[in-house]
Amino acid sequence: MVFLFIISHGKNKLHQQKAEFIDMSTITLAIHGGAGTILREHMTPVLEAAYQQALQRALDKGYAVLEKQGTALDAVEIAVKDLEDEPLFNAGKGSVFTFNGEHEMDAAIMDGSNGMAGAVAGIRGIRNPVELARAVMEHTEHVFLTGTGAEELAKALGIAEATRDYFFTEQRNAQWKLARESGQTALDHNIQLKDKKFGTVGAVACDHSGNVAAATSTGGMTNKRWGRIGDSPVIGSGTYANNSTCAISCTGHGELFIRAIAAYDVSCLMEYKGMTLEEAMRMVVMHKLVKIGGEGGMIGVDAQGNAALLFNSEGMYRGMRSSSGVSEVAIYK
Amino acid sequence: MVFLFIISHGKNKLHQQKAEFIDMSTITLAIHGGAGTILREHMTPVLEAAYQQALQRALDKGYAVLEKQGTALDAVEIAVKDLEDEPLFNAGKGSVFTFNGEHEMDAAIMDGSNGMAGAVAGIRGIRNPVELARAVMEHTEHVFLTGTGAEELAKALGIAEATRDYFFTEQRNAQWKLARESGQTALDHNIQLKDKKFGTVGAVACDHSGNVAAATSTGGMTNKRWGRIGDSPVIGSGTYANNSTCAISCTGHGELFIRAIAAYDVSCLMEYKGMTLEEAMRMVVMHKLVKIGGEGGMIGVDAQGNAALLFNSEGMYRGMRSSSGVSEVAIYK
Repeated sequence: MVFLFIISHGKNKLHQQKAEFIDMSTITLAIHGGAGTILREHMTPVLEAAYQQALQRALDKGYAVLEKQGTALDAVEIAVKDLEDEPLFNAGKGSVFTFNGEHEMDAAIMDGSNGMAGAVAGIRGIRNPVELARAVMEHTEHVFLTGTGAEELAKALGIAEATRDYFFTEQRNAQWKLARESGQTALDHNIQLKDKKFGTVGAVACDHSGNVAAATSTGGMTNKRWGRIGDSPVIGSGTYANNSTCAISCTGHGELFIRAIAAYDVSCLMEYKGMTLEEAMRMVVMHKLVKIGGEGGMIGVDAQGNAALLFNSEGMYRGMRSSSGVSEVAIYK
Repeated sequence: MVFLFIISHGKNKLHQQKAEFIDMSTITLAIHGGAGTILREHMTPVLEAAYQQALQRALDKGYAVLEKQGTALDAVEIAVKDLEDEPLFNAGKGSVFTFNGEHEMDAAIMDGSNGMAGAVAGIRGIRNPVELARAVMEHTEHVFLTGTGAEELAKALGIAEATRDYFFTEQRNAQWKLARESGQTALDHNIQLKDKKFGTVGAVACDHSGNVAAATSTGGMTNKRWGRIGDSPVIGSGTYANNSTCAISCTGHGELFIRAIAAYDVSCLMEYKGMTLEEAMRMVVMHKLVKIGGEGGMIGVDAQGNAALLFNSEGMYRGMRSSSGVSEVAIYK
């Protein structure tokens, strides 16, 4: 974080002492739309362009918040909401079908400036799960709400709902039918593991004040059952933010990321071992997660506006934009 | 871990080389039955004796497993099941009432020998939630299952169920009525915060092989609503186990323990900062949690059989037994 001290040229000494700090922190936003076996040969030029446009749109929307001196918290919420509204990604509107033909979504958000967090899991009929996660953080004294209970709170707070029709997409329905027809319903996620696409969206940001925030949202695994929850809504595993270290949003094989407490591990490696953001993320994504078979990736920022986007899978839908001049979206290695 | 090498007195040199290692690791079990404003002046001698007997019984049952060369995993499950069956504690049979007059329970278990974990949240009608958490770990490829979905799995696996009558206790019903009548239903846990009893049970163990395990189970907060989940079933926050560091089970104001990723923080302080179990637990319970207002405590063991039981509240129902000779149960500071 760089502070530029503007010396007032007024005659009044008091006025000089009150001269403003103009904050010149690097502002940074990074987003992801999931990781996994994303190969160029399976992609059409049209679909690839659609993914890139969708990533760019969410990136620009979130970044615009930061450019207008908005907070990291607002930026990650706006970016994730946009990704949730995009049918290409497995979150919000594009959420996959569960074993019972439903759409059960999870989301979390954390504010690195005060360590507050909100998360929801297994919710249905909520248009933007990240909005409900933020409402849990700001309008209740709870952190983690689930299922129909969380939906009741959403109603009480006037959070936007959506019908089942809204969540129906031909693509997800076809994936679900394929999963069902394969007969591998008992261990539902085996099906998913075949193509290993860990559909999740997420964003991390550092704002002009050096505050960081993270948000993650997902529809979970195709054909999932038993009320399965992955790492996305688990604070410390899929989502974490702390101004003194980093903000992290993960995407990957959720069970492994939970067992690794992946997001908080990055923070601890920075705080307790003195690693940089990238060193810590590399240790977790490329070594610790690989060692236990935890395929996927994560995006991170620190309070200096540094960012890293790392994955141990074939690809990760991702984007990053910063006041240092970087602006790019990417899909493959 | 101490290995005693027994020299064979046989004539055969080969036999000598094959001489057995008799494992003399310190075996240790620690348990808790919740922390909070537990004051001697609010306790009757009869009730106090009942708590002590209940703690001793669970402690002895779990310790017996370790004495018979059983695993830490079995020991913590047995101890927690016993605490779940005891109406005095807020878990299993003694679970508090939710806003809707239900009993919704959470539990988690983690095996430090392989980093596997299982957790359930918001489940009804399951006699021993810790048993279901273990089944999630051993019979599915998932870690975290919730609500009716988790209950379906329980049925499919033949996990013992229980009717609503089973969970009805006069004490909890009276607490619930009081909470409802106070009118503070909107922010349900304010009521709970008045007396600040964080009802949870948990166990941690180190077995003869130096493997550690942790388990936690709870009925959550009286009059809770909105599908609220605390830290108990959140791997890394309320429950964590890793042979190379420690096994931890927490009890306290769940929201704060989630935001602090309390259990894994102890592990990281040991692994990355070289702290002992007790130093790391003291840092988290007495400093980091206190700083954010996180009232409660935790129990922990390491793979050498060292144990610590720490709390920043008035009291914590707790007990510890070890092959080093210690055996005690306690309630107050």
